[in-house]
Amino acid sequence: MDEEMRCFAWRGDVLHLLDQTRLPQQEEWLECHSAGDVARAIVEMRVRGAPAIGIAAAFGVALAALRAGAGDSSELMAAIEQAGQTLVQTRPTAVNLAWAVQRMQARAQALKMLDPEEAALALLQEARTIAEEDEAANRRMGMLGQALLPAKASVLTHCNAGALATGGYGTAVGMIRAAHEQGKEIHVFVGETRPFLQGARLTAWELQRLGIPFTLITDSMAGHFMRQGQVDAVIVGADRIAANGDVANKIGTYSLAVLAFAHGIPFYSVAPTSTLDLSLSDGAKIPLEQRSPREVTHIGAVPVAPEGAPVAHPAFDSTPHRYVNAIVTERGVARAPYEESLRRLVEEA
Amino acid sequence: MDEEMRCFAWRGDVLHLLDQTRLPQQEEWLECHSAGDVARAIVEMRVRGAPAIGIAAAFGVALAALRAGAGDSSELMAAIEQAGQTLVQTRPTAVNLAWAVQRMQARAQALKMLDPEEAALALLQEARTIAEEDEAANRRMGMLGQALLPAKASVLTHCNAGALATGGYGTAVGMIRAAHEQGKEIHVFVGETRPFLQGARLTAWELQRLGIPFTLITDSMAGHFMRQGQVDAVIVGADRIAANGDVANKIGTYSLAVLAFAHGIPFYSVAPTSTLDLSLSDGAKIPLEQRSPREVTHIGAVPVAPEGAPVAHPAFDSTPHRYVNAIVTERGVARAPYEESLRRLVEEA
Repeated sequence: MDEEMRCFAWRGDVLHLLDQTRLPQQEEWLECHSAGDVARAIVEMRVRGAPAIGIAAAFGVALAALRAGAGDSSELMAAIEQAGQTLVQTRPTAVNLAWAVQRMQARAQALKMLDPEEAALALLQEARTIAEEDEAANRRMGMLGQALLPAKASVLTHCNAGALATGGYGTAVGMIRAAHEQGKEIHVFVGETRPFLQGARLTAWELQRLGIPFTLITDSMAGHFMRQGQVDAVIVGADRIAANGDVANKIGTYSLAVLAFAHGIPFYSVAPTSTLDLSLSDGAKIPLEQRSPREVTHIGAVPVAPEGAPVAHPAFDSTPHRYVNAIVTERGVARAPYEESLRRLVEEA
Repeated sequence: MDEEMRCFAWRGDVLHLLDQTRLPQQEEWLECHSAGDVARAIVEMRVRGAPAIGIAAAFGVALAALRAGAGDSSELMAAIEQAGQTLVQTRPTAVNLAWAVQRMQARAQALKMLDPEEAALALLQEARTIAEEDEAANRRMGMLGQALLPAKASVLTHCNAGALATGGYGTAVGMIRAAHEQGKEIHVFVGETRPFLQGARLTAWELQRLGIPFTLITDSMAGHFMRQGQVDAVIVGADRIAANGDVANKIGTYSLAVLAFAHGIPFYSVAPTSTLDLSLSDGAKIPLEQRSPREVTHIGAVPVAPEGAPVAHPAFDSTPHRYVNAIVTERGVARAPYEESLRRLVEEA
């Protein structure tokens, strides 16, 4: 793990992913030799976070190209097409996954004139560029976002929208880091984020390494600390944002948004423009992944419910734009009405 | 475990407690030979739930009397006084604990004329009576409460306010049971209730045995299902209710109350009048227990956070009466303004 806490590394001709199911107890790296390996890592949540799975998928497409042994451009394109299909089907909610695969496929199309080997190397470079651009975007939105915070602030975040969820630096955690780096006095309430515990396992781990003061809480404590006046802002990432500003994000985000609204606390979603899906008019059209009951009934290998207990496990929820005070992107801070402000950000590109 | 799912049994001259830290995986009974054993079981949450710890404490006082080997009434009273002090200090929030100890002490005072051995046996009978009265109260409030539910309802409950938390039958779960027994079509969303997982471990276990359909969810999913129109009422117990109707209950209750209010969903607290503390004007005066960070950072023996992560662990929160649609007691259903309605219930006794 380098000091920048990147969750991926390209070494030799293999993609290495920091296994996020093992953190914080173990720092194990997983080797991905093929697009199939990457798809499996995404399904098993060894890599997770909307921008990070987009980046992993981009490297997956590059791996498919490098391993294809394609004799000509159409063989290469077929291999890339197949890899893209496999990768896009892994998880439905984060739009960054489809965005990254489409960008890789468009690049492959543009590289058709090259011989397959050269094209594969150029695709690997494209995956690297996607990752680098994501980190750069995070640093920009961090700076834009931190300006929304006062000189002293206690903020609450949910899930992990940090370095581990992105190309580096983080989105929601990036905004917190930027405020901290600007010398602001920041304290973070970290919601543990059941069932997968990304807050307890990943965000707490990142903040500890960054030396940013934090307090780990269970998700249900959020309202209590808001009522006590201890929360100045709620800052989360996003998995997909519809044209009207509705935000799909980790399950529990909606509850936090309603609670923040009821207490007059601003609620910010921080996400790169690759998370915007202006083809969807509103959040009701965003597919919300249902995951395995086992993640609810077990914590690691330990059962916490009676055998056979029926379970619901929506992994995401959708927060209506009326609860969202601002959407922070690398191109600027969007405010309501979001139809206009988000479209303007995209068109200005 | 008998079919009524009582969490305590008096056998020979020993109090047996069903060890609720082991459920649902193991059904182990713990033997309490002294008031000190009972106090330890309460501190370690082997018995929990406001009415149940009151009942356990009553048996603890009886154990102190039986074991005192008192030569006269003043020796007996001294032993009872000491046991009462130990027991009352175990947990601060549930007022039923102090209520039960005071009732046992008042009974001891009234029995002063008897010889110590006879008095101790009469005190054991008093503890049994407290338990029986609690179960009878639960059945009454269950009937009163179920009338508030429509013929078909999906309700959400938090923590465990069931048979395991009481003398039998349950308070919040009692209201659900009564509706089910009346032939109403009831489905229950069971919030797992981190950190101690009373919902996942205990309420799910009770509902499974009762054959009442339920769905286990993580606490942060509540808002999502409310927004989808899947929750018709929120039903919880209480650890202490102030004169103005503010309800102290398991951490997370306040978040649920605000969410229910925001969605126009009724919120009910179901508790015996022994849970009322009219000496406190409002919820801000109710002491809220802080528990060990380890219950947040670990699930059973499994660590889920980085070592040394700072943690907050308020075990209870306070819900303002404006979010409480009704307080269901064995003497009637109280509604706002609670100063009047709760006082009337107590004075009518």
